[in-house]
Amino acid sequence: MTESSPGLSSGVVDLLGMLAYAELTAFLKLAEDAALLAPTLNDRAALGDVAATEYGHFRVLRDKLSSLGVDPEEAMDPFVDAIDAWHAQTRPKDWHEALVKAYVGTGIAGDFYREAARHSEEPIRRLVDDVLTDEGRSEFAVERVRAAIEADPRLSGRLALWARRMVGEALSQGQRLAAARPELAAMLVGEEGEDLAEIGRLFARLTEEHGRRMAAVGLTTSG
Amino acid sequence: MTESSPGLSSGVVDLLGMLAYAELTAFLKLAEDAALLAPTLNDRAALGDVAATEYGHFRVLRDKLSSLGVDPEEAMDPFVDAIDAWHAQTRPKDWHEALVKAYVGTGIAGDFYREAARHSEEPIRRLVDDVLTDEGRSEFAVERVRAAIEADPRLSGRLALWARRMVGEALSQGQRLAAARPELAAMLVGEEGEDLAEIGRLFARLTEEHGRRMAAVGLTTSG
Repeated sequence: MTESSPGLSSGVVDLLGMLAYAELTAFLKLAEDAALLAPTLNDRAALGDVAATEYGHFRVLRDKLSSLGVDPEEAMDPFVDAIDAWHAQTRPKDWHEALVKAYVGTGIAGDFYREAARHSEEPIRRLVDDVLTDEGRSEFAVERVRAAIEADPRLSGRLALWARRMVGEALSQGQRLAAARPELAAMLVGEEGEDLAEIGRLFARLTEEHGRRMAAVGLTTSG
Repeated sequence: MTESSPGLSSGVVDLLGMLAYAELTAFLKLAEDAALLAPTLNDRAALGDVAATEYGHFRVLRDKLSSLGVDPEEAMDPFVDAIDAWHAQTRPKDWHEALVKAYVGTGIAGDFYREAARHSEEPIRRLVDDVLTDEGRSEFAVERVRAAIEADPRLSGRLALWARRMVGEALSQGQRLAAARPELAAMLVGEEGEDLAEIGRLFARLTEEHGRRMAAVGLTTSG
């Protein structure tokens, strides 16, 4: 064990460790998708830009953990299996799926950061501000997806199902983590953290926001 | 064709386009190596850091091309085959090979930027300064390789051959490009650009510098 700051709650360490591993992995997976699936070099660069932004978030989180006297690797370790499993289950098969994954992933991550900030004090609050200033990086994905659906409306249903499956897998992994790590859950929903129903309501809010974003970009499962 | 600045030489566009595609691809390949080969999360993050730095260089180069009125995609396009071929021939099989590739790649790239600056005026000169301020990012790779060789001296010969092969493949692709694109060659060696022997001397200087770096880290083929 490294020597961590006195009074540092394990919920804070969990939250920072989970977000750090999520950002590190998002960075690497987006880079992979950019390399394998982008149809043009400009597209590859644009998705690379989203990837590099995630790396910047990872760096902020890792440095915060280090400054709190926590080994980032130890903090990330409990979340490796769940996050890796999510990516294994949501490997995009083509460029449009990669774009939707980037948009859905960064969108839900943004909502999640906002939820985390609601119940947090320093050191989480300022960090959330830092991270959220980068929002909008994935806007290019929205434009491309919207244009693709206009050109071929049948894409809408398939990509909406894809987005729905990604969110479903995320909720499934999230529920498992929340059950296994009550102090993390408490960080996210306040004092009712032991109450899994409260976590369920948090996930419901995230899912509603996700649904609004999907509708805005023209992705509806009824289409 | 996009409308480029009057008087902009095709050699400058070639140089910026080649470097841009090299950096974009280095970013994506380093991210892939970090994801697939790093033995620990901290190692993954450290190589991710090198990858993200390469993305930063790509962004500088792309923005410079755009500001000159050149479509980055058009400028990069002539270099895709050579750079992709190099990566296909130098896919690391393990973490140590990945580290040596990162060190060799960023080292040669640094020397190359310095060579390019010798014969260039704006817009290349300031850009080279921007890029070279990031040197040292791959120092972590040196430390890990040195420690690995101390722990197992037999590694030295194998990794030295690996480095040698990477450089050989780079020179081979470089010679081909220089022959095919005389204006790019002229950018690199000055007025004697049509003279392939002068390009040969440039490559010899790069190879000497590479040899010095290899010796410094304990990688010698006679080991």
